[in-house]
Parts: sequence; C-alpha cells; structure tokens
Amino acid sequence: MLSVFLHEATFLRLSERLKPFGSQICPRIYCDNGEVRQPWHNGIDGSDGGTIAFGSADIYFSPIAASFFADLLAGPDLVWFQSGAAGFDHPMLTALGAKADQFSNSHAQSDAIAEWIVWAGLDYFQNGAARRAAQGDKAWRRISAREISSTRWLILGFGMIGRATGRRLKALGAHVTGVRRSPGMDEHADILIAPDRLHDALGAADAVLLAMPHNAETEAIADADFFARMRPGSLFVNVGRGALVDEAALLNGLAGKRPGYAALDVFRQEPLADHSPFWTHPLVMLTPHISAVTQQASDRTDALFLENLQHFLEGKPLLHHVQKSIFS
Amino acid sequence: MLSVFLHEATFLRLSERLKPFGSQICPRIYCDNGEVRQPWHNGIDGSDGGTIAFGSADIYFSPIAASFFADLLAGPDLVWFQSGAAGFDHPMLTALGAKADQFSNSHAQSDAIAEWIVWAGLDYFQNGAARRAAQGDKAWRRISAREISSTRWLILGFGMIGRATGRRLKALGAHVTGVRRSPGMDEHADILIAPDRLHDALGAADAVLLAMPHNAETEAIADADFFARMRPGSLFVNVGRGALVDEAALLNGLAGKRPGYAALDVFRQEPLADHSPFWTHPLVMLTPHISAVTQQASDRTDALFLENLQHFLEGKPLLHHVQKSIFS
Repeated sequence: MLSVFLHEATFLRLSERLKPFGSQICPRIYCDNGEVRQPWHNGIDGSDGGTIAFGSADIYFSPIAASFFADLLAGPDLVWFQSGAAGFDHPMLTALGAKADQFSNSHAQSDAIAEWIVWAGLDYFQNGAARRAAQGDKAWRRISAREISSTRWLILGFGMIGRATGRRLKALGAHVTGVRRSPGMDEHADILIAPDRLHDALGAADAVLLAMPHNAETEAIADADFFARMRPGSLFVNVGRGALVDEAALLNGLAGKRPGYAALDVFRQEPLADHSPFWTHPLVMLTPHISAVTQQASDRTDALFLENLQHFLEGKPLLHHVQKSIFS
Repeated sequence: MLSVFLHEATFLRLSERLKPFGSQICPRIYCDNGEVRQPWHNGIDGSDGGTIAFGSADIYFSPIAASFFADLLAGPDLVWFQSGAAGFDHPMLTALGAKADQFSNSHAQSDAIAEWIVWAGLDYFQNGAARRAAQGDKAWRRISAREISSTRWLILGFGMIGRATGRRLKALGAHVTGVRRSPGMDEHADILIAPDRLHDALGAADAVLLAMPHNAETEAIADADFFARMRPGSLFVNVGRGALVDEAALLNGLAGKRPGYAALDVFRQEPLADHSPFWTHPLVMLTPHISAVTQQASDRTDALFLENLQHFLEGKPLLHHVQKSIFS
C-alpha cells in the first residue's frame, strides 16, 4: 500500500480515475484549510509501501504548499515525486529531487506558456495598450498595427517552451532564431545559433524571449549590455525565471526604448513587492507567474500523473524521468 | 497622358516608384489641408488620356475623402479605380464602380485583419482584461486561461479574410468550421457547412466570427435569435460590417452571457456615437474600423497598385478586377 500525497482540488478531479488503483494506494489529501485527510483510509498504514506525491499546480499555488513539501522531506520513504512543472531549480524541488528515489517532471505547460507568449506578442505589435486607451477615451482614433508576420524573434533557450513558441510564431509568418547550445536544425526555428553568437543577434530582433532555465551561467543574462544591444522599440519577454534578468538594467533599458516594452511573467522576488515599479510601468505588461495556468495544461498534467502511476505500479520506466545526478 | 488621383501620403511613399511612368502619368495629389497639387504638371492637361485613381487607406481615412470621391464622380473619364479595400458595399464605392470603366479591389488587408482576430481571440481566452485589472490593482492574483487550441471557431463567410483567419487558428490548434455557400473542402477549415446549417452550428462554437460582406441577405444576420443560440460565455467577433449585427440584440445578448464577450471593429454608425454603450461596456473590446490598418497591408496594397498600373498601361488584364455587373 502506497501513500499518495495530493492536493484536495487534484483529488477531486482524479478520484474516479484513481479508484481502479484503490487496493494499491491510499490518498493523503492536503486541504487549503490546513486539514490532512485520508478518505480511503482502511486501517492499514498507507506508507508501508512508501510515499509517492503529485506536485500539481494546485499544490504549488496553495497556502499549504510549505507543509506538503515539509512532510514529504521529513518522511522516511519518498519513492517517487511527480512534478507538475518542467523546472526544478526551486530549492524545494531540488531537495525533493535529492531525496526521492525517482523524480519525473512535466512539459504539459509548454503549450500553455507558448500561447501566453503569442498573446503578449500580438498585443504589443497590435498596439493593444494604445487601442484600449482610445476606447477608454471614446476616441475614434486610427492606431496602426505591425503584423507579427513581419517580425523577427530571438528565442533564448530552444527547449520545450522555445520550440512550442517557435512553432506558433512560424505558423503566423514570423522569423524565428533559436539560441541553444547543441547545434543543428529544428523544424520550429528558421535558424539555430550558439550562445556565443547571442550578442550579435540581439540587434536584429524585434522581440527577444527568455525561455531557458536559471543556473549559474544564465544568472542575469539580460543585463545592461544585453538591453543596450536590443533594437529600439523591440519587445522583451520573460517566461523563464526572474533571476535571468537584471531588473534595474531592464528599467533603465525601458527608459531608453531598448526594449520598447516588456511582457513579464516571472520576477526575482515573487510575489512581486507592492513597491515594485513594474506594477505601474506604462511599458510593462505583467502576470503573476501564471503563463502556464490553463485548464488544458492541468488536464495534460493529470493525464501524465495517471499514466506514470500505472508505470510506477507496474515497475515500468517513468515518462519524463529526471536523472538523480542533476539534483546533487 | 493619364491623370492619377492620389492622396499626398500615398504619393510620398510611391513617388520614386512612379517616376518610371513619368511620361505617361500626371499625378494629382489630394492633401489633407484641402490643396490639390500636380507636382509633375508639364503644361499638358493630365486628363487627356483619362483619369485613374488609387483609393488607398490614406484617402479613406483623410479629411478630404469626400472631395476626392466627388471630383472623381464629377469628372468625365474615370478609366480605372484601384480600391485599397476588399469590400465595395459603401455607396461611394458602388457609385465609383458604376462609373469607372474598370474597378479593381484588394485583398492585401486579409492577413492584417486575420492577425487582429487572433489577437482579439487570444486576449479573450487569456482573460486579458481581468489580468490587466489585476496588474492595475497590484494584485498577485492567479487568473487562469483557456488555451485557444481547445476552442471551436465558427467563421461566417469563408472568403479571403475567413480563410486567412482559419489558417492561423488551425495552426494554433483550434477547430475551424467555415460557413459558405459553395460546398466542398478547404485546407484552412476542418469543415465547411452551408448557411442553412448555421443555426445548429452556433451552439457548438466557442467563438463566432462575422467575416462576410453586407447585403440584403446578411443584413442583421446576427439578431436576437442568433445570439440566443450561442454558447454561454462564447466570443463574438465582427470585422465584416456593422450592419451584419442587430446592435440592440447584441447588447441584450451580452447581458445574458450569449455571447460572453464581443470584439468589434465595425459598427452601424461610424464613427461610433459618443453615447454608444459599446464604448464603456465591460464585455466589449472595440477598435475604430482599423483591423486592416498595418504598415504591411499598406505596403502590399501599394505593390498591387503599381503592378496594376503596369498592367493598365500595357493593356493587360488587371489583378483583382471586379466585374462591372456587380455594381449595377
């Protein structure tokens, strides 16, 4: 009998689909009000066979996230952790990855994030802010747009998110340059370049997207020099991590139109502090680390967990298994 | 020697490219301040060989549009009118079409309009308005999105604009149903249906787009019954003509969430009256008949005019020639 740690909202969605596993698992439900319930508890200690946990978006955004993760780290026998996210640079996930016998991540969010990026890009090139202001002024004011089909995008990090975005942008007629370490070709980019050519490529881009993980090499990669090389009036988009950006340099850059606008979903400090100038900056569109939050991404993540649960119980390799060495 | 009627902004863009035709044409430039200039006037009456005119977007949106068209209609010898738009249901264009020996239209705006539609669609399904309100409130508030890839679109009028939109939506993973009179298949729709099946299809759509011309049959096609058949919370988009919509019925529909939101670029009365409830309606995004206004559409229209000028002077058939019978 395995103990399965879940958020209550996740359990509500999955309970019917978990029932077929009823003789092998005992759900342990973390509720937003602090309660922990074991609705299927049958007198047998659920943790006899070890603990597995599903870190869905419900948990990441819940008030009991800290106790959920603390309980997992304090327990003796975390045999598998399924993350609902692609990244694992958060200290809590790093600790879980080091502790768990197996860790699997999810790329179910890539398509959601790519849609957020296309939305942000279209809104900038369609002059959305000025058009909404005109509506607010009841002004029948002709405000032109630039077709996204005429724009050149530079995508830093051409992994799952970068590729999902490149695919959509190319379908809309834009030109896509991907930056990644491994050379070669990719159907979702017009051209791939190595990181050492990044600085020369910045000046040719109408939009620059950060979609890479954060690590020692990418810390503050978007710094004063980076922004100074951008094209005046270009768009800067960050869906990676706040720590990829020198935020003071970004504010300076916006003051000089390099970039001309920033669409930001991630920040160095989250939640963003009340006094952050980003909240009210006229050249910034921001959302609170939710570019991945769609019903469809949640459905895909649930499906991945259920498929991996089947794999785990049958002793088969997990989908999107992450090598343990990455956490050490 | 042909007299060529142009707006001053159009002439400024094209003068270098018109010079090779200098011995055959005499530009007649309409300026926003009311002046009419003939910069290349050489003493020869430019209208000896007849008058041609380029109705670019510059003219349509200029304060001297009325006098430009009045002069053309009053003149004796309009041999060719190149419109910058696809439609010709405006009374002025109908009159010009009836008068001109030849009339050609332009589909250069279709791709621009399609981008406007995708922008409007993504903004609705990404919950753009609520997310901008949260930023305005400095609220780190998790607002979910629906992926456009999960949406079903019903496109009324599957001509150049409908197809350009269908192509983009399908590339983004959405399901596209086109409504058009001629049966068959189209690569940019998942399915085409005949107008008599429209009413049944409305209830299955997450977004309904009007992209057809206005005529006696399509007058107020979006009426109370039409909106009542829409799915609660669905999106209604109109880039066709204001007269396709019963605007009172749309307001009633919005009050009952059918549709849940409207993105409107055209209205029965343009400019929209100050007292129109659309300006301030929380469930309406509107722009002032500018979905086609992009630099790229302007460039494509210029290129079409220049190519057709060459054709005209060589006596070759015009591109996008419109049969005169349509204006009678």
